Amino acid sequence: MIILWIKLIAMNKVILLDKRPEGVPVLNDFKFIEEEMPVAGEGQVLLKTRFVSVDPYLRGRMKDVKSYVPPFELGKPMQSGVVSEVISSKNKHFKEGDFVVGYVDWKEYQTSSGKGLTKIDADAADLSAYLGIIGMTGLTAYLGLKNIGKPKAGETIVVSGAAGAVGNVVGQIGKILGCHVVGLAGTDEKISTLKSKFGYDEGINYKSTDNLEAAVKAACPDGVDIYFDNVGGAVSDAVLANIKYKSRIIVCGAISLYNDTEPALAPRVEWRLVVNSATMSGFIVGDYADQFPEGMKQLTEWYKEGRLNNSETIVEGFDQIPEAFIGLFQGKNEGKMVVKI
Amino acid sequence: MIILWIKLIAMNKVILLDKRPEGVPVLNDFKFIEEEMPVAGEGQVLLKTRFVSVDPYLRGRMKDVKSYVPPFELGKPMQSGVVSEVISSKNKHFKEGDFVVGYVDWKEYQTSSGKGLTKIDADAADLSAYLGIIGMTGLTAYLGLKNIGKPKAGETIVVSGAAGAVGNVVGQIGKILGCHVVGLAGTDEKISTLKSKFGYDEGINYKSTDNLEAAVKAACPDGVDIYFDNVGGAVSDAVLANIKYKSRIIVCGAISLYNDTEPALAPRVEWRLVVNSATMSGFIVGDYADQFPEGMKQLTEWYKEGRLNNSETIVEGFDQIPEAFIGLFQGKNEGKMVVKI
Repeated sequence: MIILWIKLIAMNKVILLDKRPEGVPVLNDFKFIEEEMPVAGEGQVLLKTRFVSVDPYLRGRMKDVKSYVPPFELGKPMQSGVVSEVISSKNKHFKEGDFVVGYVDWKEYQTSSGKGLTKIDADAADLSAYLGIIGMTGLTAYLGLKNIGKPKAGETIVVSGAAGAVGNVVGQIGKILGCHVVGLAGTDEKISTLKSKFGYDEGINYKSTDNLEAAVKAACPDGVDIYFDNVGGAVSDAVLANIKYKSRIIVCGAISLYNDTEPALAPRVEWRLVVNSATMSGFIVGDYADQFPEGMKQLTEWYKEGRLNNSETIVEGFDQIPEAFIGLFQGKNEGKMVVKI
Repeated sequence: MIILWIKLIAMNKVILLDKRPEGVPVLNDFKFIEEEMPVAGEGQVLLKTRFVSVDPYLRGRMKDVKSYVPPFELGKPMQSGVVSEVISSKNKHFKEGDFVVGYVDWKEYQTSSGKGLTKIDADAADLSAYLGIIGMTGLTAYLGLKNIGKPKAGETIVVSGAAGAVGNVVGQIGKILGCHVVGLAGTDEKISTLKSKFGYDEGINYKSTDNLEAAVKAACPDGVDIYFDNVGGAVSDAVLANIKYKSRIIVCGAISLYNDTEPALAPRVEWRLVVNSATMSGFIVGDYADQFPEGMKQLTEWYKEGRLNNSETIVEGFDQIPEAFIGLFQGKNEGKMVVKI
């Protein structure tokens, strides 16, 4: 009797980090477990996961090395940006039916003290947009461009990973600001989307182009003022060979390097930086938290005006989260990769 | 009779760029010629060269490649910063006996319209100091540190080429500003001078140290806030492995790379910059010409107060200019290398 009763209780699915990946992550690095359904305690809310953001930078947290955020712990749940619905609340700031965004565990249900959760307006935009174009992804593009790129109308911006989550927004903002925008991506489909959907002036398929340095030069006849780098690697070398005097390089991500087990070698950048009085800065959006409200306001405004196109690849099902994440490294996403639960 | 008469006329020595160096420059890349003695025309001054500055960055101008200044032309005189004496003047702004500093040809005598010449006070400081500690060298250290390094008291500054012309001044200014200053140099004599003469807290001989990365770590227990790089190459890789969150890297020179015929390879810097929110900027002192007056005022003040030690290696004789220049790449100088005529 007792055994039967237990089996009737709904269980809660959780995704743990089981192994630290070597090279590209594989499904076996993750572990699915079931735990008892959580219940909101005093001051807590019970959250139901609705949309999960999977992002290349999570690969960094899977390594056991010092970085700008502590590494994920083995045997503990993975985490990322998540849109949740408040199912029940014992916290006066939230009520049942509220939607919130926050950095929480990969669980179907979880409790929270409410700390770090932001209420979002489900009528103003699609829920998933709060993870993308008007969420952390949009902020990364907007604040990186604004604080380090400092674009002026007429300048040339080159974007690597241009069809990716952050890249497509960088291109769109660049066009809003009156810049010449050139994108690098890895398939002809993506190149076509860059122009048709995101307003890019030029697109270069880095996989099918023999002389990438010459292709960047042809697409940027006046040279490169701003390079927004989401990728790193050989693609960057070709762009850096075309930078202008006083150019600004935003190193936002290095997806091509995340899975390296040895530090990759590349032509030294020092001389290029000196002869061009150029600046190369690592950008972490979390450093600019004080600018989030202004950034979200601007992004939401552009989005509502129809000037920003929200590009998403939506995968369905809680069980698909690890696979969606792994897909990022295979270029499976166009725009923001989100898992709908 | 005519031939004899010509031979009695004093001739003017000139040093031309004869060949573009391959790798480290050699004497044979230069050519000595004699030309007729110049005479000041209307509006001109006749200058006698007194001190010639030889600097690593000149190596860049000897290459036929785009850089922040146009390359030297083959068969034309070499140029650099020079302190000259006005021998005769047909320009109302200068009179005989004035001393001036400017960027002019490697000639014993030459005429000038006066454009680009700055009068200097021979009583306020040694003439050679206007090429060094209170001249372009001092300004490079001061303005690079101020504009890109932005040092705060208590921060750690690492300097490569620390006993060199710019490096020794960076260290001294760092100490004036209350920083912990660590220098890298290539001989034990230089390391000893770093501490005894320039106030460095720690010195590391990069040639005799096996594990440079560990040595930098030991000398900078709190990590590196500012790296003032005059050298580039493997020395930089060891420093970059120790940078802190929000660190600033001033790429001022890359003497170790100037003579490379192929671009050298190095571990990619992108990831380090991202995880540390770090900034790496190429620095060219000429970009900050509007700050020269303020910089010279501050440097002269510190110099007169005895807080800045002027370190020079003085070579004598016009004919020795190319050899002094070549000596820079062999580490023959301590402090600023100057040729006295």
